Amino acid sequence: MPRFRMTVEYDGTHYVGWQRQENGHSVQQALENAILSLTGETVSIRGAGRTDSGVHALGQVIHADFSRSWAPYKLRNALNAHLGLAGERVAVLDVLEADESFDARFSAVRRHYLYRIISRPAPLAVELKRAWWVPKPLDHERMHEAAQQLVGHHDFTTFRSAHCQATSPVRTLDRLDVTRAGDLIEIRASAQSFLHNQIRSFAGTLKLAGEGKMSPADVKAALEARDRAACGPVAPPEGLYFLKVDYADGL
Amino acid sequence: MPRFRMTVEYDGTHYVGWQRQENGHSVQQALENAILSLTGETVSIRGAGRTDSGVHALGQVIHADFSRSWAPYKLRNALNAHLGLAGERVAVLDVLEADESFDARFSAVRRHYLYRIISRPAPLAVELKRAWWVPKPLDHERMHEAAQQLVGHHDFTTFRSAHCQATSPVRTLDRLDVTRAGDLIEIRASAQSFLHNQIRSFAGTLKLAGEGKMSPADVKAALEARDRAACGPVAPPEGLYFLKVDYADGL
Repeated sequence: MPRFRMTVEYDGTHYVGWQRQENGHSVQQALENAILSLTGETVSIRGAGRTDSGVHALGQVIHADFSRSWAPYKLRNALNAHLGLAGERVAVLDVLEADESFDARFSAVRRHYLYRIISRPAPLAVELKRAWWVPKPLDHERMHEAAQQLVGHHDFTTFRSAHCQATSPVRTLDRLDVTRAGDLIEIRASAQSFLHNQIRSFAGTLKLAGEGKMSPADVKAALEARDRAACGPVAPPEGLYFLKVDYADGL
Repeated sequence: MPRFRMTVEYDGTHYVGWQRQENGHSVQQALENAILSLTGETVSIRGAGRTDSGVHALGQVIHADFSRSWAPYKLRNALNAHLGLAGERVAVLDVLEADESFDARFSAVRRHYLYRIISRPAPLAVELKRAWWVPKPLDHERMHEAAQQLVGHHDFTTFRSAHCQATSPVRTLDRLDVTRAGDLIEIRASAQSFLHNQIRSFAGTLKLAGEGKMSPADVKAALEARDRAACGPVAPPEGLYFLKVDYADGL
């Protein structure tokens, strides 16, 4: 059975999250429905990351097996046509034929996320549900300094949801950079894998650092506490974007 | 009566346009309703530009007269609270007390607009209603070259809606630049004032230039024809953003 690897974009506002679940419409379901209406086949797809409700993706990666071969561009266009007819806020950006050993989740060597904060007195109109609105001023240089305390190989129990299913709280965080352009503060995070709510927990804690409520040393102490209670409030999902996944083949 | 000048952002998707009209909810009405619910006063506000339905603003400027004075930040926060309660997609970014000679429309010395095109095979998910999706590749350098044929003092009859109410089709276009960053093509237009549908007419014509269907010389000939029939298709409203207004006081 030919296996296809696809890069997928979605507006997470309209979904219960990536993963198929009982209580509402998921991105996975939207894609599986599109495949069913295109091919008549019920397939199960796997994504590189299980994003929560409200979290967006500009470069989620999935794989799925089809019973017949397709020219990749025809498969992309046909799936987008079916997604559009169904009124989904999901688009297939790119399709590649993949080796049967390729697994969107388990072959991933690095995942990249972006967290967007808009810091200004006025609420969001154009960017509503596309960024976290923080009305108080934030010192992004202090946020970046605090973020550097978290980079590296650590036990991230402090920054992990109580619902996280990972067997170990230890991860290697390769990058956590905070930059600013006008009112927009961007946090960029890269690692082979993340714990559930890890980046939103980072963002909530770094916001406290930006407000002057936590020093970089306080953030380091929170990490070392290995205690969920030491974490700042979890930042809302609408600021988070799943940007990109790296695989060993470099494609 | 104290006069206030305000910078306003809105998502045009949800409105029939800037101007109050019979057939639906306008941005002007949303702001006038917020002022009424805050002060109990029925005021008539004036905007620097009358954007169409679907057109967004990041920096529309308005003025309104109030019966009593307000600390500007309090007025901003109170209006945003009322807009939020009403579920409007409008935000007041900034409030300044203005001289009674200030008129948001007639004092404007330059208006700046942005037109966003996303050129890629896949439809838009995250940017739906926030940019014009063009599936075919576009040559942005050719678009920029064609745009330069339009800069200057000209009769813009070709690029003017049949419904345009301006007394003269002559305008001075100060800038029409086309740049690209990845899939995103941005057209930036500046002039003291624009004709109705002028920028969307430019964008539709420049898209034909980007596809190779019009040369820069063809665009120049279209301008010189002073004939609406020589214009490319008018680009859709969702790509257009009213960015900024300059006034002689430099504020």
